[in-house]
Amino acid sequence: MLREIVEEIEKIVGKEGIAKNVEDYLYDETPKRVRPKAAEDVVVVKPKRSEEVSKILKLANEKKVPVVVRGGGTGLSGGAIPLSPGIVLSMERMNKLEIDTENLVAVCEAGVTLRQLLEEIDKIPGLSFPPHPGHEGAQIGGLVANNAGGARAVKYGIMRNYVLGMEVVLPSGEILNLGGKVIKNVTGYDLMHLLIGSEGTLAVITKVVLKLIPEPGGTYTLVVPFERTEDAIKTVPQILRSGIVPLAIEYMDVEAVKAGEAVTGKRWPYEGGEAHLMIIVEGRDEDELLKVSEDIEKLAKKNNAIDVFVGVSRKEQRDLLDIRSLIYEGMRDVTVDLLDVSVPIASIPEYVTKCKKFAEEVGIKVLHYGHAGDGNVHQHILEVDDWEEKYPKFKNYAFGLVKKLGGYITAEHGVGVVKKEDMYSTLPQKAVELMKEIKRIFDPNNILNPGKVVDV
Amino acid sequence: MLREIVEEIEKIVGKEGIAKNVEDYLYDETPKRVRPKAAEDVVVVKPKRSEEVSKILKLANEKKVPVVVRGGGTGLSGGAIPLSPGIVLSMERMNKLEIDTENLVAVCEAGVTLRQLLEEIDKIPGLSFPPHPGHEGAQIGGLVANNAGGARAVKYGIMRNYVLGMEVVLPSGEILNLGGKVIKNVTGYDLMHLLIGSEGTLAVITKVVLKLIPEPGGTYTLVVPFERTEDAIKTVPQILRSGIVPLAIEYMDVEAVKAGEAVTGKRWPYEGGEAHLMIIVEGRDEDELLKVSEDIEKLAKKNNAIDVFVGVSRKEQRDLLDIRSLIYEGMRDVTVDLLDVSVPIASIPEYVTKCKKFAEEVGIKVLHYGHAGDGNVHQHILEVDDWEEKYPKFKNYAFGLVKKLGGYITAEHGVGVVKKEDMYSTLPQKAVELMKEIKRIFDPNNILNPGKVVDV
Repeated sequence: MLREIVEEIEKIVGKEGIAKNVEDYLYDETPKRVRPKAAEDVVVVKPKRSEEVSKILKLANEKKVPVVVRGGGTGLSGGAIPLSPGIVLSMERMNKLEIDTENLVAVCEAGVTLRQLLEEIDKIPGLSFPPHPGHEGAQIGGLVANNAGGARAVKYGIMRNYVLGMEVVLPSGEILNLGGKVIKNVTGYDLMHLLIGSEGTLAVITKVVLKLIPEPGGTYTLVVPFERTEDAIKTVPQILRSGIVPLAIEYMDVEAVKAGEAVTGKRWPYEGGEAHLMIIVEGRDEDELLKVSEDIEKLAKKNNAIDVFVGVSRKEQRDLLDIRSLIYEGMRDVTVDLLDVSVPIASIPEYVTKCKKFAEEVGIKVLHYGHAGDGNVHQHILEVDDWEEKYPKFKNYAFGLVKKLGGYITAEHGVGVVKKEDMYSTLPQKAVELMKEIKRIFDPNNILNPGKVVDV
Repeated sequence: MLREIVEEIEKIVGKEGIAKNVEDYLYDETPKRVRPKAAEDVVVVKPKRSEEVSKILKLANEKKVPVVVRGGGTGLSGGAIPLSPGIVLSMERMNKLEIDTENLVAVCEAGVTLRQLLEEIDKIPGLSFPPHPGHEGAQIGGLVANNAGGARAVKYGIMRNYVLGMEVVLPSGEILNLGGKVIKNVTGYDLMHLLIGSEGTLAVITKVVLKLIPEPGGTYTLVVPFERTEDAIKTVPQILRSGIVPLAIEYMDVEAVKAGEAVTGKRWPYEGGEAHLMIIVEGRDEDELLKVSEDIEKLAKKNNAIDVFVGVSRKEQRDLLDIRSLIYEGMRDVTVDLLDVSVPIASIPEYVTKCKKFAEEVGIKVLHYGHAGDGNVHQHILEVDDWEEKYPKFKNYAFGLVKKLGGYITAEHGVGVVKKEDMYSTLPQKAVELMKEIKRIFDPNNILNPGKVVDV
């Protein structure tokens, strides 16, 4: 990095605002076999206030220096990896959090972590933030910039559904407030909803107003193993159509379950079967929870479920969720890539069945799991001989099938850098053109996350 | 209109695709004292298919002829009024509707009315579309283009929360599909969410995929009169903070109730008091409904409620809702304007109290009612002597206060033409600039709804 610009930045944020351990800020959780190499000649800046972000962006814009915004570094698409020398803007010190119980909102600086938010809300009886969009080390700014999803989307939706307002800094340094502590607002085009999911390429999110809702009821966690994948998958839309809205319906190949057991050291209630569903149901009281569980049991057994195990205690349920949540962690070393396609829920059986067949043909090992209740299928690609040759064939097939089924190549992980070319080739050309023109309006010098999602 | 272009259009849509009764297509429900005069030299075109819309827009774009898209004509901001000679594109004949029970979605052509959608869904046990964004004659395309809200937003959200996909036609004639029958999608910038609420100024919506959800429980409708406005209004956030999420919490000045009674010929359960709340609660069964009603009663009585009346039968509840829904209808002849500001829920008392005081000072008659549960206050301006002089003073005061409280000048009616200048003066200048540049990208010749919301 030019020494000159580092000196300028130091004047803005002080010595403590510049990180020395640059190597800790170069990568995110993107599987290492598909992630790009990070540029190492970067200055890592940790602003404390929006005004500092403003000054840094103004400077970078004038000097045309790339700026990569970094939240908790939990992304899986390489969105936080600097591709060229420049500035990494880490939001970790902007972590002020205010819960406004009068308006039922949380006002979070971008660097507030999901864990911090959940802990703070836990202290206030009656209020909750029910979606659980991923890793609790993720920061709110990043979750909004990526429009994160997660398992509870079936009932409680995704980040977009909770964002009421935001403060952003444009590449020009201008600070802009959009929305606020209001539930309805149709005053002009909704720039806020355009920025949600734009992955740090249009503006830097510095503050977010999140909607909170009354605390939901209690939960049971059901584990339902099946001998055959088809039977497990076809049960999912049947549950939804029966009028039950579970918090989450997760599908898992049995190998995925085993990986989760290995990394957590915890035990899943059933060893056998080919495919398992994990269903989290919610109810006001035990009667309602039992009734819903029984309804699901009947339905599952009609579809040849081997059995239905019900996790009741907080600990039992936490353990089951951990096994599910840490599958990626458990297989990280042998992972080539992790896909997160989105298809219509009724098309999940066709998608998974065809992908499994093709994977076998091409000789690649793929574990399937994911948020079956909202059409979001995760495909975990494991290392095999010649994966460099086989995997592109599989991905090409899978993404082609996704498009044919009316789906999209990324449901919640984002495009980042690893899916950019796939996005260009699967979206309508005109849509990509419009996105590029929008990028040009917000960021004419292409300083924000250059090389990611949309380039000018 | 140029005869030449009418002939071209007739070649596209046939004779039956051109309306003869032009005068029925010039205005919407905007109060006549504030609405602009419509241009009468327009051709009203009623396409049947997206391909026809495409050809018409292509032609209009080449000849630089203004196109105003028209849905059910139920708008309140003049969005459907043609301001200059050109084409009025009425979507009424594009009214095909398919309910996809496998994917739990409704695929609606733009001209499907809300009534048609609700009737069709009613035939399918277990499924519902719970938001009720306004007049049932409104068309889905218009509801999405305006991101309509309505009373049930407290629990069930607004149109934006239900749109999964759309087909739009750009001014160039290109047909673009965005989203689809998928719940999660983060593949690139969300153009769909940018188009929701853009009021027909960026593209013509021809098809919408709407999310359906399992049928909610039963409802009771509570009427709670108060002697003092302050007591009624302060009860609202207290209900929400108590953990109860009603379907709707409506606030009404008693004069508004009387207007609703007059137009419907139906009786409200209580005559007196200064201000009434109408609260619709939802529950799985009678026990739950009774419990919630009692909780609200206790809370209301602590705030000096005169009494609590509970509407239980379907008819009773329908009658109460009719009285509330037809207030505008009941006062149309004496209406100057109808405001629909959005403020943080905790600021409603301050907003209403100050506005009432200012209205008295300036000598203007304003009825207050609206969706108190989501911060959306309606202010019904009634005709008085010299309203032309007094009303601008009041509006100026009210919009200034809205801005000070962190709110917005329109929560659900849209900017259209009647609030355009107010939008320009209350939003940050940079936000308006970005909107204008976005308009330029989508509609470089400014043919779509020129003069409305955002002009290039």
